[in-house]
Amino acid sequence: MRVGVLTGGGDCPGLNAVIRAIVRKGVPEYGYSFVGFRDGWRGPLEARTKTLDIPAVRGLLPRGGTILGSSRTNPFAVENGVEKIRTNLQNLGVDALIAIGGEDTLGVATKLHEIGVHVVGVPKTIDNDLSGTDYTFGFDTAVNIAMEAIDRLHTTAESHHRALIVEVMGRHAGWIALHAGMAGGANIILIPEVPFDIEQVCDYVESRFRLDYAPIIVVSEGAKPRDRDEVLRGAEKDAFGHVRLGGIGDWLAKEIEARTGKEARTTVLGHVQRGGTPTARDRWLATRFGLHAIDAVHRGDWGQMTALRGTDITMIPLSEATKELKVVDPALYAEAEVFFG
Amino acid sequence: MRVGVLTGGGDCPGLNAVIRAIVRKGVPEYGYSFVGFRDGWRGPLEARTKTLDIPAVRGLLPRGGTILGSSRTNPFAVENGVEKIRTNLQNLGVDALIAIGGEDTLGVATKLHEIGVHVVGVPKTIDNDLSGTDYTFGFDTAVNIAMEAIDRLHTTAESHHRALIVEVMGRHAGWIALHAGMAGGANIILIPEVPFDIEQVCDYVESRFRLDYAPIIVVSEGAKPRDRDEVLRGAEKDAFGHVRLGGIGDWLAKEIEARTGKEARTTVLGHVQRGGTPTARDRWLATRFGLHAIDAVHRGDWGQMTALRGTDITMIPLSEATKELKVVDPALYAEAEVFFG
Amino acid sequence: MRVGVLTGGGDCPGLNAVIRAIVRKGVPEYGYSFVGFRDGWRGPLEARTKTLDIPAVRGLLPRGGTILGSSRTNPFAVENGVEKIRTNLQNLGVDALIAIGGEDTLGVATKLHEIGVHVVGVPKTIDNDLSGTDYTFGFDTAVNIAMEAIDRLHTTAESHHRALIVEVMGRHAGWIALHAGMAGGANIILIPEVPFDIEQVCDYVESRFRLDYAPIIVVSEGAKPRDRDEVLRGAEKDAFGHVRLGGIGDWLAKEIEARTGKEARTTVLGHVQRGGTPTARDRWLATRFGLHAIDAVHRGDWGQMTALRGTDITMIPLSEATKELKVVDPALYAEAEVFFG
Amino acid sequence: MRVGVLTGGGDCPGLNAVIRAIVRKGVPEYGYSFVGFRDGWRGPLEARTKTLDIPAVRGLLPRGGTILGSSRTNPFAVENGVEKIRTNLQNLGVDALIAIGGEDTLGVATKLHEIGVHVVGVPKTIDNDLSGTDYTFGFDTAVNIAMEAIDRLHTTAESHHRALIVEVMGRHAGWIALHAGMAGGANIILIPEVPFDIEQVCDYVESRFRLDYAPIIVVSEGAKPRDRDEVLRGAEKDAFGHVRLGGIGDWLAKEIEARTGKEARTTVLGHVQRGGTPTARDRWLATRFGLHAIDAVHRGDWGQMTALRGTDITMIPLSEATKELKVVDPALYAEAEVFFG
Repeated sequence: MRVGVLTGGGDCPGLNAVIRAIVRKGVPEYGYSFVGFRDGWRGPLEARTKTLDIPAVRGLLPRGGTILGSSRTNPFAVENGVEKIRTNLQNLGVDALIAIGGEDTLGVATKLHEIGVHVVGVPKTIDNDLSGTDYTFGFDTAVNIAMEAIDRLHTTAESHHRALIVEVMGRHAGWIALHAGMAGGANIILIPEVPFDIEQVCDYVESRFRLDYAPIIVVSEGAKPRDRDEVLRGAEKDAFGHVRLGGIGDWLAKEIEARTGKEARTTVLGHVQRGGTPTARDRWLATRFGLHAIDAVHRGDWGQMTALRGTDITMIPLSEATKELKVVDPALYAEAEVFFG
Repeated sequence: MRVGVLTGGGDCPGLNAVIRAIVRKGVPEYGYSFVGFRDGWRGPLEARTKTLDIPAVRGLLPRGGTILGSSRTNPFAVENGVEKIRTNLQNLGVDALIAIGGEDTLGVATKLHEIGVHVVGVPKTIDNDLSGTDYTFGFDTAVNIAMEAIDRLHTTAESHHRALIVEVMGRHAGWIALHAGMAGGANIILIPEVPFDIEQVCDYVESRFRLDYAPIIVVSEGAKPRDRDEVLRGAEKDAFGHVRLGGIGDWLAKEIEARTGKEARTTVLGHVQRGGTPTARDRWLATRFGLHAIDAVHRGDWGQMTALRGTDITMIPLSEATKELKVVDPALYAEAEVFFG
Repeated sequence: MRVGVLTGGGDCPGLNAVIRAIVRKGVPEYGYSFVGFRDGWRGPLEARTKTLDIPAVRGLLPRGGTILGSSRTNPFAVENGVEKIRTNLQNLGVDALIAIGGEDTLGVATKLHEIGVHVVGVPKTIDNDLSGTDYTFGFDTAVNIAMEAIDRLHTTAESHHRALIVEVMGRHAGWIALHAGMAGGANIILIPEVPFDIEQVCDYVESRFRLDYAPIIVVSEGAKPRDRDEVLRGAEKDAFGHVRLGGIGDWLAKEIEARTGKEARTTVLGHVQRGGTPTARDRWLATRFGLHAIDAVHRGDWGQMTALRGTDITMIPLSEATKELKVVDPALYAEAEVFFG
Repeated sequence: MRVGVLTGGGDCPGLNAVIRAIVRKGVPEYGYSFVGFRDGWRGPLEARTKTLDIPAVRGLLPRGGTILGSSRTNPFAVENGVEKIRTNLQNLGVDALIAIGGEDTLGVATKLHEIGVHVVGVPKTIDNDLSGTDYTFGFDTAVNIAMEAIDRLHTTAESHHRALIVEVMGRHAGWIALHAGMAGGANIILIPEVPFDIEQVCDYVESRFRLDYAPIIVVSEGAKPRDRDEVLRGAEKDAFGHVRLGGIGDWLAKEIEARTGKEARTTVLGHVQRGGTPTARDRWLATRFGLHAIDAVHRGDWGQMTALRGTDITMIPLSEATKELKVVDPALYAEAEVFFG
């Protein structure tokens, strides 16, 4: 059997570890050969390939990023895209595909499965917002990076009188902010699931200053103030006069300064959260996803993806993963609120 | 209500985070006051206490170790030990105890519960070998430290021709070796659950050298060769002429040198694995255990302990945790073997 | 003798290590007692003190920040400020002061020395821009934090097609950008000493993309484009219509996107660079500065400050440190340029 | 011009950064081509080469180890060794050699220079014991790794009652122990330059326990007790009955346990200190050494090596580097002793 492998969407620590595990088990144990497809779905669409054998995966385990490259190409948005993929797979002698990616990549995989392509999925989202799996790899790494940044801010908070804001990833779900904020001992955590009241935030800030200790605020990039008018009042206008919100972290700093009279400073971690070597837990999870994905190919479990449930790896239908976003449970957020203020 | 808190057994990153969470929730939400008991069961036995209020737990989240100190004192091995504890608790006005510890500490807690003391447990073992919970805090930190050591050895392995051995914690269960070895890309992982064949280990070593890449071997301190005679043959004798095994890591190095003619070097991480700041995951788990333990006290869930199941914290009977050791499942070890050699 | 100690200006990893070394040597070896002054010059000005003895400095070595707090208070800008300091020192029985700080703090120390106050200085600037010393503590820590961020971005740069920008500290001197950029393998380094040509930056960006590898740009917060008009063209206007430059990192991202048509993303490390535990080198330097400062007090070397020259600690006049800014030597920048593009 | 590059002796973080800098400057700026020699002097001796061009050095900056491999081969100990090297260099069209290594490697380089081979040296020793340069790359990385291990032990020292020993590299010079011990806040530092009194060590251990805080002892692998009889008394015998000292760390643990009745535990970091990614400072120093080495080739500065003096890179005669070992200055050790006990 000849198996194609591709990675789609934003990069995530652990992608290379998945690829390595697939090949390290698939070649000696099942006698498979592999084709690496470059840049997500663009690979099978344009027959862009890369050699994928045991020497090619040597040393990959600790490396962030993906040797296969990635893209957000959607073959269903390309004329005759699906036909091209079928033809290319046939020409390359590829019998099955392992697609490693998030909502979009697995959405394409689901549709291809429905029209008969042999596909197995591996879930990937640094935001941890995919249903059906307890965790996705990369998330633990991102949380640790954000937590280390918060740890560093604490020493400044003990010495100075400034509100310190950290903006972390999470457009639609606040998992990174929640975990990093709790692990880092943040005084306030703002997430997309719970629109915040800027007055309440400023109350926390001021009560914290009264303890002679500067507040640390962790905010998901997708967090939003409860009252949209608040946003517009503080909004910048660009060179053409259009309203422009800017990052939520910068906006918060300006609002806090204006309302409390205290200085505020923002750290925007950005892509730093996506990169570097994965934590032990992410390497473990990514490696196990890879091993179970190639086992699924061997069993012919098409249309399924790997998932973590407790300490076990199981297979679930691809469609389950993408049907709804996994958001932060209010009970969990309430646990974090114990430490607010 | 007045609640006593104690930590027993070996120290573990996250102990302080548990203590902090108990106090940070217990004081404002339930109106409890707290008594810290020093040095494990010796605290209530000898009425050795420490102030435990909100100022006392400030800044504890990232700190390894335990501000309460620890010991391996067993009150059931002390004359009138249990009576002394009852009297001290009564004199100090302590209505309930939260005992944070491993098999021994929770074993004492179980017996005290059976004779009517109000006890709630929080499981702690760096080796991850307690039944009833998916993971314990401290384990993730230890695995990351061991993995980082292995990562560092890889660069030497690429440049030199020496077998490199890392001895990690794990007397009875190989969880740290298994996780760190898989995450670090070790070529051989030896655990207590699976007695090893030294000939097989040397075969892996030699096949690895033929690939022009030095082998990295991760070994639990409790791993044992299959044939005990092998051990004795290589055994050292101390100044008095008695046979002395020494650490398994050093023994392996000598055997590999003798059998393959290649140099071998050993790293013994020792207490370094127990120390330092906890990872994000361990802080998260420890904090949640603390919050749920004080909730259990509030509900009067005596004789129960916190446990992680998937992403949920639940309560299980204390007796369940200590009745059997959680050892590495052969199926998991087989996953690691894919990467051996 | 009774010695006062204060820390002024922005916090910096290593401040606590200096304080610890002063006390750990001064008490047993010279029999001195100490007074900690809180919040920089505000301490002696308002007689705000803190106990400073051996128990007070226990555990300080690895801790970032400063237990004495800091401020930017200038006693020469306060009515009768100098008189108040003299009176407070006399009332508290303080015979000598050790002032740990940057240009401003040491500038005040210089003037106090000139009017007869017994002062010894310890230089502190995270930006490494003080004359008279090869390095200041805190700088090495900041450089390592920035380098680790760049390391993490490289894995994204290998997988995606986005220009990645890191804005680091350095208002007047580009030492952090230069060192972190060279250590991290940045493709372009922009520093305040060398106004940059945005066209040239975009040329580098485009040539890098042609190699199929995304560019990483490190920029000092104080870096400026050569042509001021460029700045104004891209400038935002605030809610009141005033031109607003914003951070240079964000400005660069917008310019690169507009000029090259490629996506660009910015990381702003901010206060994260100031915090956390110091590196080994910063702890070593800070500890030695502390030891030599208290020796200088013992010798009566008033008006002098500690300085690193090669591997030696020497004393130099305070006035030398503050008379001019130490900027990046063009020859050093030329070494970095070897790796541009 | 065609330039050969080789790395000899033990591996050291920064070797790859030197190689990269040589090539990244030599190719575009001087128009040179390069030949990588494999495994130290064995490379030119046996004409074992490796392609060394700009693609070959991509991504090398953060990688520990050496892509050229290393060995301890001495061509002067091989029959006609020097002749073979001359012939191979001529056949390969190599006009000049850059030898990166320690005492042995540079000793060979010195002799080859004396008989007319065009050689430039780059000093390398993780132990920092080469004369003529303030520091060598790799040392800062090793010190930070050892310091982090000590940091981790402090949390255990606060919670338990055990003497904790860390054995670090340094056969002949105690630089790593001195720097890591001072940076980590060790209570005792034992180095080869100063034979220790085991009674004195035990006195420190006991006085520390009286403070209710466990002692941390850092010991160079080459440290020796003052009285050799002490060593023999505690010595183990191997299977053949010969006296065997074992590691000094293990020996210390046994002596402390026997003399004080307290438990003691040893961490042996071993090769972990040599590996992994270099610190910012080591990457900076290694990169600058590489740039200045290729400049020296361009100028024809044969028989010279790069050296750090303060913040400057200079060239010094190769013979100066190897004529005597740089050992720890007693005045520096006295600074560390301030913190003993």
